[in-house]
Amino acid sequence: MELKYKGKTKDVYSLGGNEVLLKFKDDVTGENGVFDPGANSVGLTIEGVGRSGLRMTKHFFELLKTKEVPSHYVSADLDDVSMVVREAVPFGKGLEVICRFRAVGSFYRRYGAYLEQGQRLNSLVEITIKDDERGDPTISKDTLSELNVLTEAEYEALKQLTKTICGYIKEELATKGLELYDIKLEFGRDKETNDIILIDEISGGNMRVYKGDQYIEPLVLEKEFFKA
Amino acid sequence: MELKYKGKTKDVYSLGGNEVLLKFKDDVTGENGVFDPGANSVGLTIEGVGRSGLRMTKHFFELLKTKEVPSHYVSADLDDVSMVVREAVPFGKGLEVICRFRAVGSFYRRYGAYLEQGQRLNSLVEITIKDDERGDPTISKDTLSELNVLTEAEYEALKQLTKTICGYIKEELATKGLELYDIKLEFGRDKETNDIILIDEISGGNMRVYKGDQYIEPLVLEKEFFKA
Repeated sequence: MELKYKGKTKDVYSLGGNEVLLKFKDDVTGENGVFDPGANSVGLTIEGVGRSGLRMTKHFFELLKTKEVPSHYVSADLDDVSMVVREAVPFGKGLEVICRFRAVGSFYRRYGAYLEQGQRLNSLVEITIKDDERGDPTISKDTLSELNVLTEAEYEALKQLTKTICGYIKEELATKGLELYDIKLEFGRDKETNDIILIDEISGGNMRVYKGDQYIEPLVLEKEFFKA
Repeated sequence: MELKYKGKTKDVYSLGGNEVLLKFKDDVTGENGVFDPGANSVGLTIEGVGRSGLRMTKHFFELLKTKEVPSHYVSADLDDVSMVVREAVPFGKGLEVICRFRAVGSFYRRYGAYLEQGQRLNSLVEITIKDDERGDPTISKDTLSELNVLTEAEYEALKQLTKTICGYIKEELATKGLELYDIKLEFGRDKETNDIILIDEISGGNMRVYKGDQYIEPLVLEKEFFKA
């Protein structure tokens, strides 16, 4: 098994054919020793965080499969803390697609003059480019088209797909009394078929979830979500 | 004549009816004593800068009038350094509409991973909210709609109007051997008719202009533009 790429929180191994293996690690992003899923640097190692993220990811990808959402997911092995996925090509140098149900985080910091913190949003989609050095700036439909990263039609397709997917995830969390405030997805093109598919992971580290007025940290979220 | 509002670079007086008088000042925005049209604080006073901005503004609003572009412009008095305009209501707390023909400034800082500095852009339009405290963040069509600042149709109308106007301004500058790299416009709703109209000023301080490879500073631009 050949190591293709060492990521911040996952390593990627080639499996031959059109599949790769993602090995989830216990390294988490953060700054000054505090876990912050939005941060760009790896701040610390927390035992079990890789398995926790994988467990959530497996659950949601399998749920989305029943909804016929196209994704890279093939199978997951919780003991090996790894996931087999179809190989995908990112858009440009990588995009993050954010779906917002409540105004918090960077959205509130930018538009606080126009809304209250925590105000409801109608599954509002924003796209950012993955660029640590430049602080992952947001990017518009017109700019993505101008830079030949996404056509206008692809942008609209991605936006609708994101709203659909995040609606399912929000509903699923709600069955456990949890409220999804916002979530970050990644998409790519299937290397074989060129179809747009959901990639990366779907875990506590990619979403902000509340229980009533209480923010639920990623690691606590997994326990809360899977408790009987 | 009642003072309605003291701005950073202009004071606004009520004239009764649906007209106001804009008194251009010699204060310019900048930081550490350096003139920077993009800055939010007033950095220094330069004698004649108000008249210079008004002269350009008068020229371009009169040009745009011949092209039937709807604007707030009524008349300008260079000796009094003032301009009479129709009263307009800003969108939200004020928007800036930027049209980009070359990738420079904040656009290049954000998307430098995808392009070369100075690369040509196809009259790309971006909107930012006027919010000094939050660094005038860019805002998307979807977010403007979500926040009830602009409907999707109004966004598209504003975008097309901006491309048309900036095309005229670019052409006009080109007749003097000057190249427009980017420009910032402001729009509002006519207080009487509710039509979308071009407001504010059109001067060196709102545009980046080059002559060959040489950036032309706002005050030099006026001299260059009006020289026989």
